[in-house]
Amino acid sequence: MTTPFERIALIGIGLIGSSLARVVRRDGLARSIVAAARSRATLDKVVELGLADTVTDDLAEAVRGADLVVIATPLGAYRAVVQALAPALAPGTIVTDVGSVKACAIADVAPHLPAGVHFVPGHPVAGTEHSGPEAGFDTLFRNRWCILTPEPGTDPAAVERVAALWRAAGSTIEIMDARHHDQILAITSHLPHVIAYTIVGTVTDLEQATQREVIKFAASGFRDFTRIAASDPVMWRDVFLNNREAVLAMLQRFTEDLTQLQRAIRWGDGETLERWFMRTRAVRRGIIDAGQA
Amino acid sequence: MTTPFERIALIGIGLIGSSLARVVRRDGLARSIVAAARSRATLDKVVELGLADTVTDDLAEAVRGADLVVIATPLGAYRAVVQALAPALAPGTIVTDVGSVKACAIADVAPHLPAGVHFVPGHPVAGTEHSGPEAGFDTLFRNRWCILTPEPGTDPAAVERVAALWRAAGSTIEIMDARHHDQILAITSHLPHVIAYTIVGTVTDLEQATQREVIKFAASGFRDFTRIAASDPVMWRDVFLNNREAVLAMLQRFTEDLTQLQRAIRWGDGETLERWFMRTRAVRRGIIDAGQA
Repeated sequence: MTTPFERIALIGIGLIGSSLARVVRRDGLARSIVAAARSRATLDKVVELGLADTVTDDLAEAVRGADLVVIATPLGAYRAVVQALAPALAPGTIVTDVGSVKACAIADVAPHLPAGVHFVPGHPVAGTEHSGPEAGFDTLFRNRWCILTPEPGTDPAAVERVAALWRAAGSTIEIMDARHHDQILAITSHLPHVIAYTIVGTVTDLEQATQREVIKFAASGFRDFTRIAASDPVMWRDVFLNNREAVLAMLQRFTEDLTQLQRAIRWGDGETLERWFMRTRAVRRGIIDAGQA
Repeated sequence: MTTPFERIALIGIGLIGSSLARVVRRDGLARSIVAAARSRATLDKVVELGLADTVTDDLAEAVRGADLVVIATPLGAYRAVVQALAPALAPGTIVTDVGSVKACAIADVAPHLPAGVHFVPGHPVAGTEHSGPEAGFDTLFRNRWCILTPEPGTDPAAVERVAALWRAAGSTIEIMDARHHDQILAITSHLPHVIAYTIVGTVTDLEQATQREVIKFAASGFRDFTRIAASDPVMWRDVFLNNREAVLAMLQRFTEDLTQLQRAIRWGDGETLERWFMRTRAVRRGIIDAGQA
């Protein structure tokens, strides 16, 4: 049996990168793993956890001899990362990433890659509210979607090799246009996150005594938002900055709808409220029927 | 061993009422259970499930001979319910309720009770997105709070008997002023619900093809909101109509904060975003430390 990859270079090794490293190790999907990170503490942790054969903070060194490079840093670091590693990429190398916004990933990565290097943008739709190499686990991607957004003309064999990696991790592959991906994720993921970040922020402004009681009774609804609002701050900063238009468009709709509900509450319009709540209940049934609950 | 209650009358037997009936049955907390509901279908379901010894749609008949009456209807029905059953209440009877807003419960119930009847307003802080007698289960209240908000001067023995019932169901009792309860729950429960109802409503207005994709990728954040937004429409209509001022005050703060985040996204203000997201992450740690995660 041949090993799918000779050498995988993971650029950034937080929750996603380290979970992928664990999958690659577990299933022997590469002969060797190189992990690159900026901080010495992260690299020490990777060594301690045995997640890579080599660790380095030198990106060019990290990708030398790699046939697969996985960029798993926050989106805001992509441009600098690619400029640092591009000169060391051999023709035929596949570069992929795991970022939550795809049009900007393509804009920041593709123009800087040498000829003959294949770029297959990817987004494993998985995560937890924890960060760092110690937060990863090898079942993170199981039964989750992995969306790939290759530009037209990308080598199908390269796309298939990346797809096979994620399938090995337990994910189902969806191929999609990058801009369409960003629209859909603005609704399913980015809008919910900005809302959750807002409401939890609103609570942190309350006086201390009230805040203690809110935490005490958090299980009555608030708790579900705090999990989302505990997601990685830098990663999410970069998501919002890089999917600005789609997020703002959805926020505009959300605000209009909230104003309508607020008005119904103020004026005691029970009919509007009840009709609204019947409608939203039906969406939940759709999600249960789709096996996504 | 004496049975805590002779006869418990459950007025309304949905998720909460039927879960309590199951607890009372399981632990033999009453010699008999009467269940009252408006609809024949509900009463038939109660008989089929064996949740009560007697079922009726006549509220006066339901409470005759009961030493504990539990009002478990939506808040909007309280006034009519109490007017119907009050004449049949014997002195010494304890009346309690399970509504999510307490000041209005007191206003709608207390003035109509005959002398010698004890009113102990209660709020078991527990629930699921399912409704109806078939949705109940006897562990719903386990490890959850039950908040009691008796007015000053209420017979301590009556309060203790209601507290003991909820302790038997597995809950921890908290005694609180009704208006304070409504303030705290506006933050922990009512605001999160109106936000979740809004965002799910926003999605239901999208075109069908987009909606299907949103449901497909709901696990990326949206899903957590749909569970909350599937809660009982009539119950929640009444919560918002009856805790209007506190909910509107919190909504006002939320909207201001959302506007600030929206502005930071529009103007590419990464520092504000990152600082905000660091702060909200700390709240999650508070909830984990408080054992409420």
